[in-house]
Amino acid sequence: MEKKEKLYEGKAKIVYATDEKDKVIVYFKDEATAFNAQKKDVIEGKGILNNKISSLFFQLLEKNNIPTHFIKQLSDREMLTYHVKIIPIEVVVRNIATGSIVKRLGISEKTEFNPPLIEFYLKNDALGDPIICYEHIIALNLTTDEDIKIIKDLALRVNKVLREFVEKANIILVDFKLEFGKKEDGTIVVADEISPDTCRFWDKETGERMDKDRFRLNLGDLTKYYEEVLKRIEK
Amino acid sequence: MEKKEKLYEGKAKIVYATDEKDKVIVYFKDEATAFNAQKKDVIEGKGILNNKISSLFFQLLEKNNIPTHFIKQLSDREMLTYHVKIIPIEVVVRNIATGSIVKRLGISEKTEFNPPLIEFYLKNDALGDPIICYEHIIALNLTTDEDIKIIKDLALRVNKVLREFVEKANIILVDFKLEFGKKEDGTIVVADEISPDTCRFWDKETGERMDKDRFRLNLGDLTKYYEEVLKRIEK
Repeated sequence: MEKKEKLYEGKAKIVYATDEKDKVIVYFKDEATAFNAQKKDVIEGKGILNNKISSLFFQLLEKNNIPTHFIKQLSDREMLTYHVKIIPIEVVVRNIATGSIVKRLGISEKTEFNPPLIEFYLKNDALGDPIICYEHIIALNLTTDEDIKIIKDLALRVNKVLREFVEKANIILVDFKLEFGKKEDGTIVVADEISPDTCRFWDKETGERMDKDRFRLNLGDLTKYYEEVLKRIEK
Repeated sequence: MEKKEKLYEGKAKIVYATDEKDKVIVYFKDEATAFNAQKKDVIEGKGILNNKISSLFFQLLEKNNIPTHFIKQLSDREMLTYHVKIIPIEVVVRNIATGSIVKRLGISEKTEFNPPLIEFYLKNDALGDPIICYEHIIALNLTTDEDIKIIKDLALRVNKVLREFVEKANIILVDFKLEFGKKEDGTIVVADEISPDTCRFWDKETGERMDKDRFRLNLGDLTKYYEEVLKRIEK
């Protein structure tokens, strides 16, 4: 597998072409951003941890028959994945209310959503990833009604698998963001990453935050907690 | 019909009890507010015009078998309506993109929505009426799945009737906001008001704004344009 030209550079990852058209290499950077990139920093080692954690989670999903873009981990910072066309919607699944939704809708912190709440956001940094609904997805032609059904179903299945898995590691899955991509044959797969950058994880015993909120809220020790997540889920 | 105690005072209207428990008197004030009441003024005569225009539109809807809270116009500023329990959702129907959605989602001004776009907002001034989706309505228990179906159907029917009606008066119905209420027997009806305060009307020939955007955008002559709307639809 030969690494070729850079296809795309995002806030936390770089995507490179390979000598196989349907495969790309995802490189995990150490950049941390929050609040639509208004807050930025470099946190040494974060990329390595997110690559390892994401690889583990993608393998877990595959084992549970949830299709992902993941093929294999190549190195500390590199993952081989299928080359997918990203659907420009960020899908958020919430089990417990915290963060933006609490202020936005006046919901009490830690309200449980049962069933889990699914939200859609338009993947558009310039617009600050605004929240959108089913109706906007159709009106803006972001994807089809049929795809939305598949995406919602996959998102809830990911939630179930991840939640039960981290629960065994004494971690509460509070909420998380997924992105979906389409493979050449049209299959919709879970793409992007699944890591403490994109999930909120709380320690089940202490309630401590083990995710990017440590950066957002200036709590410090980010890599220490990411390492702890990795350690617990590797078991 | 005896006017009794004040039940509720909103930004543009006051609701009074009557000697009949299932009926209330809605009084239209001259207060104008915009941008979540950050911009305020009193525009003499606006309440009278909105009462007259709303009464006309509610009668038009009733004639088209769309249930409303309207019973009859009582005076220049007063309307007799059924006493309904307002569902705390503002329903916006958009035929043409303008206003907040253009900036929020990066849509070009005057993009046509075909079919019309329906949006929901949480009716909560303190939170700035945030946009919500079907999923939030269910999670926050604002109303039932069945009610949402009825509300969406009614909103689209209102759009069709209003749009065709004002079209004959050389007016384009750009978008509008509806509120729905439940009567004692559970029937969902169109409530609140339907006026140039809650609809965007553009002159079909000149494109001039004939609605509250004259206040929002400091275009002046608000009552002149509201009077023109009334004159044209009275024909």
